[in-house]
Amino acid sequence: MFEHEPNPTPRTGRLYGIGVGPGDPELLTLKALRLLKAAPVLAYFVAKGKKGNAFGIVEAHLGPEQERLPLVYPVTTETLEPPLSYETIIADFYDDAARTVAAHLDAGRDVAVICEGDPFFYGSYMYLHDRLAARYEVDVVPGVCSMLGGAAVLGSPLVYRNQSLAVLSGVLPEDQLRRRLADADAAVIMKLGRNFEKVRRVLADLGLAKRALYVERATMANQRIVPLDDVDPMASPYFSLLVVPGEKWQA
Amino acid sequence: MFEHEPNPTPRTGRLYGIGVGPGDPELLTLKALRLLKAAPVLAYFVAKGKKGNAFGIVEAHLGPEQERLPLVYPVTTETLEPPLSYETIIADFYDDAARTVAAHLDAGRDVAVICEGDPFFYGSYMYLHDRLAARYEVDVVPGVCSMLGGAAVLGSPLVYRNQSLAVLSGVLPEDQLRRRLADADAAVIMKLGRNFEKVRRVLADLGLAKRALYVERATMANQRIVPLDDVDPMASPYFSLLVVPGEKWQA
Repeated sequence: MFEHEPNPTPRTGRLYGIGVGPGDPELLTLKALRLLKAAPVLAYFVAKGKKGNAFGIVEAHLGPEQERLPLVYPVTTETLEPPLSYETIIADFYDDAARTVAAHLDAGRDVAVICEGDPFFYGSYMYLHDRLAARYEVDVVPGVCSMLGGAAVLGSPLVYRNQSLAVLSGVLPEDQLRRRLADADAAVIMKLGRNFEKVRRVLADLGLAKRALYVERATMANQRIVPLDDVDPMASPYFSLLVVPGEKWQA
Repeated sequence: MFEHEPNPTPRTGRLYGIGVGPGDPELLTLKALRLLKAAPVLAYFVAKGKKGNAFGIVEAHLGPEQERLPLVYPVTTETLEPPLSYETIIADFYDDAARTVAAHLDAGRDVAVICEGDPFFYGSYMYLHDRLAARYEVDVVPGVCSMLGGAAVLGSPLVYRNQSLAVLSGVLPEDQLRRRLADADAAVIMKLGRNFEKVRRVLADLGLAKRALYVERATMANQRIVPLDDVDPMASPYFSLLVVPGEKWQA
């Protein structure tokens, strides 16, 4: 009589944090491709009015039946009146995004959150992970991160043998940047943008300018490799990075 | 009369340095897969008597017509009489390996050198690249490196927002390790093996032992995640790593 048994405790969905690589759609892994094609819901962080780099990388692989779930960043104005701050606004936004994703998971739908580069290497997915990983089954698929995409297109080995690598943000104060760069065998500096001039000055002071290599949007269709001296500091985009390769190991 | 025109200057082959990811064969990128399937010659570094991790990752994708070119590391004894040293022996070995690869390139055959993880992130491919990149056309395909594979299987975001990441080798002297770890927001320590006990002591001294996570052979079939206190320092393999994640950013 009962063709379909009622399911008393419906299964909750599984959360996937999927790195889709630095930009070249061919730098997607086989695992990322398999999981994102199978996901009923595909979520991604995106700026208002943009398609999003991560979505652009995977778009050609998606079927029409897969739900797209853009998580659109709030537009923050330059000055905020207390108690408002960038931190509170963005925290509220991530709370909302986590609730949106959780609603799908609670309804039994798997959600793949795609993320440029690697999910755990400065990835926005981390803010969902920290809010949801304790409550749901989660799988994280690592991806090729931007610094490795950058080194590859620059044709420059990054770090040899027992050398140390420092991954630094361009927003660091100048003295910190100087101290950490002076101490590193090899370094990658991300998040340049408006910090470019400061970073270039520190590299010059430390005698590292000749060794440093610069690339914008590595592996993306609009990639640009520019000699350090020729970079226009007012036009350096967020997706640019500097590589200071380790000294060649003479084996 | 001449159905086939003679080719006066035969094209030299192209060299590919291809990252095949940390171990899970599904963490191969689409680009790596396409290029390694098309390569007439597939070269890889390997220990004597072993199949090699990189070769194991790609083996299932190869056709019988593709030439396998294992580059077998010399067996070094514990003590070497001067002027012999590990450095001279390994340098001679890389010189020989480069000549072997160059012979194929000179004969017009493309050579794909496969490499665990990423070719430019401590990859053995770098020693061929440094010897051959000036003479041949070269493409480097970045891969998912072991530290990102490790963070993914540990389920631990690695580095947030403007935090600095230090990638360190376990062979560093204890004082250097201590200084660099004390200064880092987040850290990954590779090449543990016989250095494990020293590294664990430094982490404990700095109050970082609770935050540190340990994994052996991340994403490989024989992966093991072990609490730091339970690691047998005599049995920690070369392919193990420690992750000290950055403090969660409370957005």
